[in-house]
Amino acid sequence: MAVYNFNAGPAVLPKSVMLKAQEEFVDYRGCGYGIIEESHRAKPFEEVIQAAEANFRSLLNISDDYAVLFLQGGASLQFAMVPMNLAIPGKKIGFCDTGEWSHKAIKEAKILGNEIDMIYDGSADKFSHIDGIANWKFDKNLAYAHICSNNTIYGSQYPIYPNTGDVPLIADMSSDFMSRPFDINKFGLVFAGAQKNIGPAGATVVIMRKDLAARCPSTVPTMLRYTTHIDQRSLFNTPSTFGIYMIRLVTDWLVGLGGLPAIQAMNEAKAAKLYAAIDACDFYRGTVAKGSRSLMNVTFRIKEGDEDLEKKFVAEAKAAGLIGLKGHRAVGGLRASIYNAMSAEGIDALVEFMNAFAKANG
Amino acid sequence: MAVYNFNAGPAVLPKSVMLKAQEEFVDYRGCGYGIIEESHRAKPFEEVIQAAEANFRSLLNISDDYAVLFLQGGASLQFAMVPMNLAIPGKKIGFCDTGEWSHKAIKEAKILGNEIDMIYDGSADKFSHIDGIANWKFDKNLAYAHICSNNTIYGSQYPIYPNTGDVPLIADMSSDFMSRPFDINKFGLVFAGAQKNIGPAGATVVIMRKDLAARCPSTVPTMLRYTTHIDQRSLFNTPSTFGIYMIRLVTDWLVGLGGLPAIQAMNEAKAAKLYAAIDACDFYRGTVAKGSRSLMNVTFRIKEGDEDLEKKFVAEAKAAGLIGLKGHRAVGGLRASIYNAMSAEGIDALVEFMNAFAKANG
Repeated sequence: MAVYNFNAGPAVLPKSVMLKAQEEFVDYRGCGYGIIEESHRAKPFEEVIQAAEANFRSLLNISDDYAVLFLQGGASLQFAMVPMNLAIPGKKIGFCDTGEWSHKAIKEAKILGNEIDMIYDGSADKFSHIDGIANWKFDKNLAYAHICSNNTIYGSQYPIYPNTGDVPLIADMSSDFMSRPFDINKFGLVFAGAQKNIGPAGATVVIMRKDLAARCPSTVPTMLRYTTHIDQRSLFNTPSTFGIYMIRLVTDWLVGLGGLPAIQAMNEAKAAKLYAAIDACDFYRGTVAKGSRSLMNVTFRIKEGDEDLEKKFVAEAKAAGLIGLKGHRAVGGLRASIYNAMSAEGIDALVEFMNAFAKANG
Repeated sequence: MAVYNFNAGPAVLPKSVMLKAQEEFVDYRGCGYGIIEESHRAKPFEEVIQAAEANFRSLLNISDDYAVLFLQGGASLQFAMVPMNLAIPGKKIGFCDTGEWSHKAIKEAKILGNEIDMIYDGSADKFSHIDGIANWKFDKNLAYAHICSNNTIYGSQYPIYPNTGDVPLIADMSSDFMSRPFDINKFGLVFAGAQKNIGPAGATVVIMRKDLAARCPSTVPTMLRYTTHIDQRSLFNTPSTFGIYMIRLVTDWLVGLGGLPAIQAMNEAKAAKLYAAIDACDFYRGTVAKGSRSLMNVTFRIKEGDEDLEKKFVAEAKAAGLIGLKGHRAVGGLRASIYNAMSAEGIDALVEFMNAFAKANG
């Protein structure tokens, strides 16, 4: 039986990448041992990290004004590192609240003593859409403004990005990074845990305007300063070497597919097929308004939230080889995470199962 | 040609572990995809992290008074997290300086505004031995005292641990963790980057007395508080799942060997053979005094530091399949890192090469 993994992250990786990594796991390209055993200061790994950086620069057309960093600690550590490095005494930080991940970022900014300016608050609608982005107003005195481009839990995604003028825009792109093209020059800093679209858990990618790093006060520990990692090209200490190796393979795969426009087209087609199955009947109901629906995390309910039927759905899907369809524990319901590496066959199998389940239980 | 990897870290992993990880890389125990693709909240990974913790508890006889945590960021982040969490306003932190890694820890404590009490300073001897440990005096008002159990760069190792009385003893054990038995109850907190003795880079193990975590002030970000990770059993956010999986396999291997007394005996035998080859002739000279020599990182020079011959040694060794023998860039010379997973055959091959090289160039 074919198995399709719809987990929200860590998540499915491209099959060809998995097979390549397996093939060279114990003997990396003839060196006699695995890349996981290689020194981070040795040539084979230097070549890996440089190739991974070059892939990001090519896929996103990143200029030398920006650094590409491979860090650790996930988005959760970035929630603290961003204000530690980029806050400015006496200035507020702007936040656009689209759910749980925004709250976590806001919490860390406050722990560090910062005042918040809430630009947008989606809580009244239970984060079921992201409204009026083009009209959001950003005070020019903000230290920076923070958004979360895709909410993994609620299943919402920014269809466009706000215009923050001269205020640096910071984006937590953990769950839709490298799933569609974007103009990096509109952002001050973008970060993403690797474990959704670009690699395994434990590696975090940060792309940032180098000039912003100079804001960091001298009281911030060395490992938590962006300048440290910019100066040392992510090799101040031992990074997650195997994670970076996997990111290199995944970004090689992306380049081979035709880059971000190509993966975007594939992601749009996959999501369209799945949302069509949800919208085609009354049995399922999408939880996010059209126009804000995520191409990555498709959230839905059965009959306005019949928890027993949803439980049955998850169990029967699992038995049919469709894994990880339970919604996040904070919101319940159902969720299919269909990141870059989810195949069209996986979507077809899920749609077929959904139709059969609706027929049997509708 | 057999290849032996003497890199200081990331380093060689047990062959049986590498083969097992390769075998189940794309299909973890029949689940249809790899453990690297598995959700950190799913049963198969829960079983992995619990088994890894259970292995540490069994190998070190760790009581419930201590937490076993799987974090990220390496020892370098611990250099900051330890004082962020355990410093006490108005109290000094004690440091025992045995070289580079001590300096890095001291630097972070100072950045965070702490005053230092230097208990021991090995700089006068260029860190070539660790002297009079049993007589070191620790002021009872210290917030805690910090040591680095094995200095990877200089090749020195504590033969015994100091008695700090009621002052919590904190040990950076990155490069000799799980290479010999120790009494965890003598320590307040022990940390180690995994990439020497217990797994791949990107995973960090912390074992700590739970009661000490309560010291943490409210101004410390959530991800940098030990309480967060104790409360959430290392699953506050997505940890380095594949790293923890590898740690589980490596600690399974350690248990299978007979635990820490067994690996200690093997490490002592390997190191004895190598030091005997160094001491047997005037051609080589060990850089560390007997009694402080590391069983993990064997540092030596050729003829009082003949850099040309050392260069030749490294190149010819590499051609013979003996990789990573160059000393750390901060001190030069030669270094063979012979962690738990370095086989007796690797030591024999190195000794044979050293004898032939001395004969040809002596």
